[in-house]
Order: sequence, then structure tokens, then C-alpha cells
Amino acid sequence: METYKRHVEKLLKILTDKNLKAALVFNPANIFYFTGTDAPSATLIFEDSRVVSISSRLEYLRAVEEHLIGEVYAFSRATEVAEYEKIIQGDLYESIKKLLEGMTPERIGVVGGSADLRQKLTEKIGPGFQDLSREVSLLRRQKDLDELERIKSAIRIGEYAMSKALNALEKGVTEYEVVAEVLYAIHRNNATPSFDPIVAFGEHASHPHAKPSRRELQEGDVVKIDLGARVQGYCSDMTRTVIFGRVSTKQERIIRAVLRAQERAIEALRAGVRAREVHMEAYRILKEEGLHNYFNHGLGHGVGIEIHEEPYLNAETEAELLVGDIVTVEPGVYMAGYLGVRIEDMILVKEEGTELLTYFPKDYII
Amino acid sequence: METYKRHVEKLLKILTDKNLKAALVFNPANIFYFTGTDAPSATLIFEDSRVVSISSRLEYLRAVEEHLIGEVYAFSRATEVAEYEKIIQGDLYESIKKLLEGMTPERIGVVGGSADLRQKLTEKIGPGFQDLSREVSLLRRQKDLDELERIKSAIRIGEYAMSKALNALEKGVTEYEVVAEVLYAIHRNNATPSFDPIVAFGEHASHPHAKPSRRELQEGDVVKIDLGARVQGYCSDMTRTVIFGRVSTKQERIIRAVLRAQERAIEALRAGVRAREVHMEAYRILKEEGLHNYFNHGLGHGVGIEIHEEPYLNAETEAELLVGDIVTVEPGVYMAGYLGVRIEDMILVKEEGTELLTYFPKDYII
Repeated sequence: METYKRHVEKLLKILTDKNLKAALVFNPANIFYFTGTDAPSATLIFEDSRVVSISSRLEYLRAVEEHLIGEVYAFSRATEVAEYEKIIQGDLYESIKKLLEGMTPERIGVVGGSADLRQKLTEKIGPGFQDLSREVSLLRRQKDLDELERIKSAIRIGEYAMSKALNALEKGVTEYEVVAEVLYAIHRNNATPSFDPIVAFGEHASHPHAKPSRRELQEGDVVKIDLGARVQGYCSDMTRTVIFGRVSTKQERIIRAVLRAQERAIEALRAGVRAREVHMEAYRILKEEGLHNYFNHGLGHGVGIEIHEEPYLNAETEAELLVGDIVTVEPGVYMAGYLGVRIEDMILVKEEGTELLTYFPKDYII
Repeated sequence: METYKRHVEKLLKILTDKNLKAALVFNPANIFYFTGTDAPSATLIFEDSRVVSISSRLEYLRAVEEHLIGEVYAFSRATEVAEYEKIIQGDLYESIKKLLEGMTPERIGVVGGSADLRQKLTEKIGPGFQDLSREVSLLRRQKDLDELERIKSAIRIGEYAMSKALNALEKGVTEYEVVAEVLYAIHRNNATPSFDPIVAFGEHASHPHAKPSRRELQEGDVVKIDLGARVQGYCSDMTRTVIFGRVSTKQERIIRAVLRAQERAIEALRAGVRAREVHMEAYRILKEEGLHNYFNHGLGHGVGIEIHEEPYLNAETEAELLVGDIVTVEPGVYMAGYLGVRIEDMILVKEEGTELLTYFPKDYII
């Protein structure tokens, strides 16, 4: 409750600074950030700190129960509705128009929403809405203590699921079966997965985003496991790669290189540094080993209400790291028909240095 | 393999009819329909039946391995890449432009893609692309025997998971724990869930799309379970509602009304009928019982590569049912603070009548 109120207060400050009367918030993650529920289709936050959400009838009751701040209406053309439904007649845009009555779009900020949605707003309400997406993205990046606690809980549950997955490794087990263990462990801890877990054996691990298959575990396979949990709306994300049984010199050399690339990138990570530089640090280490051509994705990404959010750490970004950012550092090496190795931790950017949030060991022989 | 080839042939016929030289296909489900993989970002299908997909480097290897028809390139600005990567230098749009060289947009059909993406195509390649989304949606609706077999397999696995979920019901079990059983059962059958399963007890079942919680099962609760599996890319979807222990007269009356609404809607379902009429049939039955105000969503939806796809059965649609449609019929009654009841089966629309694809019993006392 306090968390979402603080987030609303930060937004109100932006409204004041920009002389705006209201903000119109779209996308489940942005809506959750201000209200504690992702059920509404849109949330309006007015300069007098009123918070009003609009949802479909389908999501209305969930929005009402989860909505920790403000009031909720359902938009609908139906005239016969349940006695507990507060209905605004019309579609989403007509409902927004009614709630914004008397305000010109120039005095209203918009957060999120697809290009398509923005165009419909212009057509149905008028042109001139002010974009606040970047400002809210910056707010969301600065995690407070309460958000950090939720993410830490999600990391602990992820680590528990990882230990269950590693325990399930035995000759002949399938990727599907290990995914089953991961999902079972996460739900038994009163959490949900933050994404579909990846469990990939041997050559199949060369797909960065492998889907589970019937591939059976064999002696000498690498095993790549990427998983995460969601607790009270906040995500975790981690990857471990281990060798099942006999380890070859080449496998060991690749894993050690990825470990070193990760270590050096984490050392380079701090507030004020360019995200691109951190990515390039890992790239350079892998280049020393002649492995850079097999590192085919960005080094990491922010994690919060969304499993992938700003800032992104890659070769193209202009972003700079900020105090309060929580990011993954996950270099990888992928070789078609042979293996894939990725090691991923979550790191908090602090005033002074960083804090490694993932504790799970990186032993790579099992 | 044959399945996707047949789908491509159907598209080629449309190209010929419309005098087009190529189709540019977007969205994972459309791409899967023609290629057998959802990894690419775009797929081009040329009038000479060549199929060329373009993917990010991240998804490239998965696209290559899963891509049952045609060739795959990765788009990238990177110059140092693995020896097995076939790269087109540039972003997605630049790569598409290269592959379409010499063709004018007026002779190219586009399938799927957001408004945003369509706008970028116009900006970066030119105006005049022909929209084929509706045509392909109609193709996708007409399931062939191979697709039907995959869906039937997905239904059988869903039914197995449902039986595991019902077996797990005991006093004090939480919603999370039952979800764990469902996901475990689906993955142990070499399948993945087609959506996040819904398990909701008592008053919590009044949310049509409830998220799992720590709510413990009590004597007299309704239990609403909505789940599905995905097999070789095709989905299933089913819902059962049961009463745990002692049943009240009111609960029984509501469940019987929903069962009757479902039965009558299924009777009304056949090729050539308006989807709206089928929805209204269920609505009318619930109105006879004074329950229509608590039926706050559409009666059903198509199921195929996507868990929700055309046709939609609701009060607003203009759609007509076609031979080959596979749809859900799932009336529901939701009462805030009290209960939610939904019963959902999948039905195939045939030349003559329909076929009920879901066999799971509808006993509602457990």
C-alpha cells in the first residue's frame, strides 16, 4: 500500500513540474506500479492525487480486490449488469473521455500504450497528449527498499527451484521432467514463474531461448537452466550451466571463460557507467578466448515488475546505469550442435558500488 | 512437414488470385502456421513457393532447427558472428527490403503485424502493401486432420491434468499447490501449458481470470479449474467447476443453470450460424434463471495455434461459424464474495453438426 502511494507521489511531482492536470497510464506493468494490480486496462492519476482505474467487466472484480489505491470502474455497453459492478457506458476510449471531461489533451500526460492505442486516443479524444513514458521508466528503475525485498524473496524462491532442478538431474531424465520440478517448486512456495523456465541439455542448449523437449540427459552433456519467480508482482531471473558427469577440456575452458566474462562485467558495473561499456567488458574477455562470435545477445537487462525492462545492457544502448537499477549480468556462448553456456546473476546498483543479489553457487560439475 | 506445406499452398493460391508476388508474414502464430516454428521475426513466402524467414540472432538457431520449410537468415549489425550464422546486415526492415528487392509494395501481401510495425514498413520500404490478415485468419480457422489430431492430444493431456488437480483437492490445500500439480502433470506428459492455469476456491472463483493465491480449500467451496496444454504448437482449453464437500441448494441451482446454458449453446452451434446467436442462446438460458447479469464475458473463442483466436463467440461479433472451426463453449456465472462457476468444452464444427472434443465428465460434487 505505502509502496504504491509513494509511486503515485513521485508521479504527482512530475505532473506539477510539467504543469499537467492528470496522467493516463497504460500497460499492465505501469498500472501495477501505481495501483498494485495489473487488472485494469487504464489508470488515471489526477493532480489532486485521485486514482481512478478502468477495466473490462472480465477483470473488474480482480481489479476491485487487488486495487490498493483509488476506485475502479468497468467499461461496457451492457445494460444488464451485476449489482456490484460500477459501469461506465461505452468502450475504453469513451470511458477515458468521460473521466477526463473538461481537460484538454495538452494538459494530460500519457504513460505507455502501443502506437495503435496512442493513435486511437488522438482520433477519439484529440491530439496533444504529453508523453511521460520515459519519466515513468526512470521512476520504475529506482527500486526502493520494499521493491528490493520482494525481488529478494523472488530470488530466494528461484534459487530453491534451481536446487530442485539440479537434484533432478540423472541419466535419462528429460528436459520436460526437469521443467516440471522447477514449476512445482515455485508454486509450492506460493509464487508463480516470472517466465517459462528453460532447461536444455547438450547441443539443445545452443538455443539461447530453448523450449523444453524430450531430449534425455546423457553423460557429458552441459545442462543450462534459466528460471525465475514472481513474488507480489516482482520478478527474479537466474541461469546456471553445469556439466553432467565427465567434463571435457573444451567444455571447461568455455565455462571458465563465461564465468570470467561475468565476473569482469560485474566489476565494471556501477552508477554512472554506460550500460554499453559493461556489455563490451564481457565481450572483450570472450574475445581474448576467441569466443566472442558465439556471444549473440545483450549482456543483461533490468528486472522489476517486468522480467525484461530498462535498462538494457548491450552493444547498441545509450543508457547509463543509475542508483537503484537491478540488472542481470548474463554472458553466454552458444555453439550450434555442441553446447550453450550462460551464467546469470542479479545485481543491485548502489550509491557506492553494487550488491550481488543472487547467492546460488556456480560450481559447474554435477 | 506436410501440414505446413499445405498451408503454404493455400496461401499461394491467394497470391495468385490477388496477383501478388509475395506475402510478408508477421506474428508468431501466423509464422508457425506456415513454417512450423515461431522463432523468426518475419517470414516471406514468394509466388514461386520459396519460403524465407528472418530472425534475430538470439532466436536464429532455434529457427534453423525448428524451421521445417525454407531457409532462415539472421538480421544483425554485428560483423563478427559464428561460422554457422547466415547474416543479413541491418535491422529487420532493412533485411526485408533486401529480400523484397525489385518488388513494389502494391504486389506484396502482409499478414499480421501491429499498427506500429505496419507504419514502419511504410516509412522504410514504401506505401501500398496489401493486407491479407483476414484471408489467413480464415485459413487458420479451417483445421485439417493433422491439426485436429494435435489438438486432440492436447485435450487428452489437459484432461489428465484436470484429473490430477481434482485428486489433489483436500481440506487446507492451497490454490498454488493445485496449480503445481497441474503444471507437473502437463510437463510430465511432454507438453507445455497453453496458458497459466486458473485454480480458484470459493469467493475467489468470482474472478473469471483469478490468479493463484494462498487461499485454503474449505468444506462447501466451489473449485474452478481452467487449464490447457500445448502439443506440437496446438492448444487445448477446458474448465470444470466442482463443489468440495457439502453442496448448498443455491450452488447446485447455479451449476445446473450453467450446465444447461452450455448444453443449449452447444446444440445451437453449427456451420453457418452466427457466433452471436450461440452466445445469446446461453445468455437466454441464464436469464430464465435470473443469472444473466453475472455472465460477464463472451461465450467462447476459437482455439488453435493461439489459445484465443478467431472466431469469438460474444454479444458483439458479426462472425459466422465455419466448417473446421474449433471453439470453446464456456458460459459462466460470477458473484462477488460468493462464487464463480464456469464449464468449458472444445467443439469442432463439421459439415453436419458438431463434435464434442472434450470428454471429461461434468460431475460437480467431489
